[in-house]
Amino acid sequence: MVDSIKRVAVLGSTGSIGRQTLDVIRALPQRFRVVGLAAGKNLGLLAEQIKEFKPELIGCPPENDDIERLRSLVDIKNNLVSLDEIAASAEVDITVIATSGKAGLKPALAALQASKNIALANKESLVSAGEIITGEAKKSGARILPVDSEHSAIWQCLSGEKQEAAHIILTASGGPFRQFSLEQLAEVTVAQALQHPSWQMGKKVTIDSATPMIKGLEVIEAHWLSSMPYDRIDVVVHPQSIIHSMVEFIDGSIKAQLSYPDMRLPIQYALSYPERLPNPQLPRIDWGLVKSLDFEPPDYDKFPCLRLAIEAGKKGGTYPAVLCAADEVAVELFLDGRIRFADIAGVVERTLEQHRTISNPSLEEIEAADIWARETLLKAASGVK
Amino acid sequence: MVDSIKRVAVLGSTGSIGRQTLDVIRALPQRFRVVGLAAGKNLGLLAEQIKEFKPELIGCPPENDDIERLRSLVDIKNNLVSLDEIAASAEVDITVIATSGKAGLKPALAALQASKNIALANKESLVSAGEIITGEAKKSGARILPVDSEHSAIWQCLSGEKQEAAHIILTASGGPFRQFSLEQLAEVTVAQALQHPSWQMGKKVTIDSATPMIKGLEVIEAHWLSSMPYDRIDVVVHPQSIIHSMVEFIDGSIKAQLSYPDMRLPIQYALSYPERLPNPQLPRIDWGLVKSLDFEPPDYDKFPCLRLAIEAGKKGGTYPAVLCAADEVAVELFLDGRIRFADIAGVVERTLEQHRTISNPSLEEIEAADIWARETLLKAASGVK
Repeated sequence: MVDSIKRVAVLGSTGSIGRQTLDVIRALPQRFRVVGLAAGKNLGLLAEQIKEFKPELIGCPPENDDIERLRSLVDIKNNLVSLDEIAASAEVDITVIATSGKAGLKPALAALQASKNIALANKESLVSAGEIITGEAKKSGARILPVDSEHSAIWQCLSGEKQEAAHIILTASGGPFRQFSLEQLAEVTVAQALQHPSWQMGKKVTIDSATPMIKGLEVIEAHWLSSMPYDRIDVVVHPQSIIHSMVEFIDGSIKAQLSYPDMRLPIQYALSYPERLPNPQLPRIDWGLVKSLDFEPPDYDKFPCLRLAIEAGKKGGTYPAVLCAADEVAVELFLDGRIRFADIAGVVERTLEQHRTISNPSLEEIEAADIWARETLLKAASGVK
Repeated sequence: MVDSIKRVAVLGSTGSIGRQTLDVIRALPQRFRVVGLAAGKNLGLLAEQIKEFKPELIGCPPENDDIERLRSLVDIKNNLVSLDEIAASAEVDITVIATSGKAGLKPALAALQASKNIALANKESLVSAGEIITGEAKKSGARILPVDSEHSAIWQCLSGEKQEAAHIILTASGGPFRQFSLEQLAEVTVAQALQHPSWQMGKKVTIDSATPMIKGLEVIEAHWLSSMPYDRIDVVVHPQSIIHSMVEFIDGSIKAQLSYPDMRLPIQYALSYPERLPNPQLPRIDWGLVKSLDFEPPDYDKFPCLRLAIEAGKKGGTYPAVLCAADEVAVELFLDGRIRFADIAGVVERTLEQHRTISNPSLEEIEAADIWARETLLKAASGVK
């Protein structure tokens, strides 16, 4: 039997998830082929990836200067297209949406509208426009295959179950500052915040893990991916990041998915689904070395970002879009040394407080809320230092 | 919609698993009805169960005296039948085989031959005659639904997976003597051995958990239930008994099934499969209370029964039947104060050493090995004290 080869497009191919996706594809050349690549940053690496994988479709960087620079680095024929075109292309079986920030939303929708499955690593699209995205998936029958380790875990645990889950238990590493006092949190430096104890990730995601805004965003994602009411999504801190999340069923039975923290596993599962594939590069848990898996409740007072995000999710409307945009700018300001780590939650909260939400927002209304949030956050932040 | 009612027979209804099965059925009267009951011991309780559930079929105790005693306790019409007849009856949708020892084997075969699913709690039938039992299930298409918490966990974790598992990781509580020294093990009393830290069970199973012969028997069961080679079944000690077992897939991803230790959950899952049913009596894990799940490798030197059982399984033939029968007699001798706790492994080992195995044994050959083992063990034990 000849195995079928899946044609994969990777949007955001030079970021952390993009590079790990290409690692998975390199390890399994008999099963996957790269037919599309796109990146907005790190054009030098994009040029190398183009030389290595020779994709039919290359995502056009937004500015013309970038296009000229990319052309100077690698021979590109007439295959420069938009991210939306790649995602919806008949040449592509599955698109990995690994772009950061709001750039992921439109290609995700384009793929779903073209009845194409997406492997979704971009959190902002589902958080900001969860109703629209899941609505498109329902309409077309295309699937949103999660790449986040937590959502992949939930998805794996739900496999084969006939009934909906009773509860989702999202695990959180707790980030590098889990045991910090409020005083210590006030003194956190950028260098400290960029050191995550268990996961290797991009800068934005690493800071979101430290605040840990990320876990709140994941609660909102879980709500949309599993149609699960917020009061049935729990967060539990699990510092070892070995249980990636759990699902409780109506009989009280719980399933958990475990592995050492390595994003290549959930990436590969999204690509290979409904199959699993052997990949010797993926680490196996050695139960002779795992002494203990620990758990503790999250501290919402010490880490208000988690509370803010869950509240924004519950309120719905344009609140989650405002949360995402405000957080993105707040993290940038922190990385630039313009606000302190402990200020991130405050400036995001002040932005959310000033927001007038719109129910069931359109894409345009979400985009407007995003722009409003960025401006409002900058104003809120200007008074901080 | 009217839910369909499953007609359940419970063989061994007065034992620990039998009584917990009836608890589950009591909690879900709209889904289950007791149509058959059988017990060889505790006829007073059997009479009460007959009065409560009014089953169409009653399992005939082996001796005539017992029948007369049962008739004196409860009004029995002409519905006394053999266990095999109950299991194969057209009146029964599923038979719970909760008899202890070798009495479970024949009704299990009778049910499978009649294309009836069985919920199997009896370890000895699968350990002694795994090839015959699983062969009958394959032939008829009937299913062996495991009731053991470990095998239920494995089964739940395999749900929806398209490919076979890479590894099975059986968890073991480690029993009450996990941290005992060899000197302390030599002094263990019957009362101590009957105190299990996490599970409420019958005497035989409790002693098997303390030795822990039980985990070795479960390795053999896992081998037959999942067609898994022995070198891909691992045992890990997990004292909290919250993770009931795990399955590793070919991509290195692991699924685990968790709950507080309560046999009613795996019993109910076997009865309700492929559905799950809400049952407020089943406990829910409170993640605010679970601080830690611990793991350690099993100590094969301190607890040789585990090693003996796995070796017997690997050797195959009539060795597992000899193991079961020898262990049953050894446990009886220990409970009667005729051998010490630390002697159980030794007398079983001496019996196994003297055995000449038969490959692919017939039922008669298994029965003969069983009888031989009981006699041989008694001789081995007579030299002990």
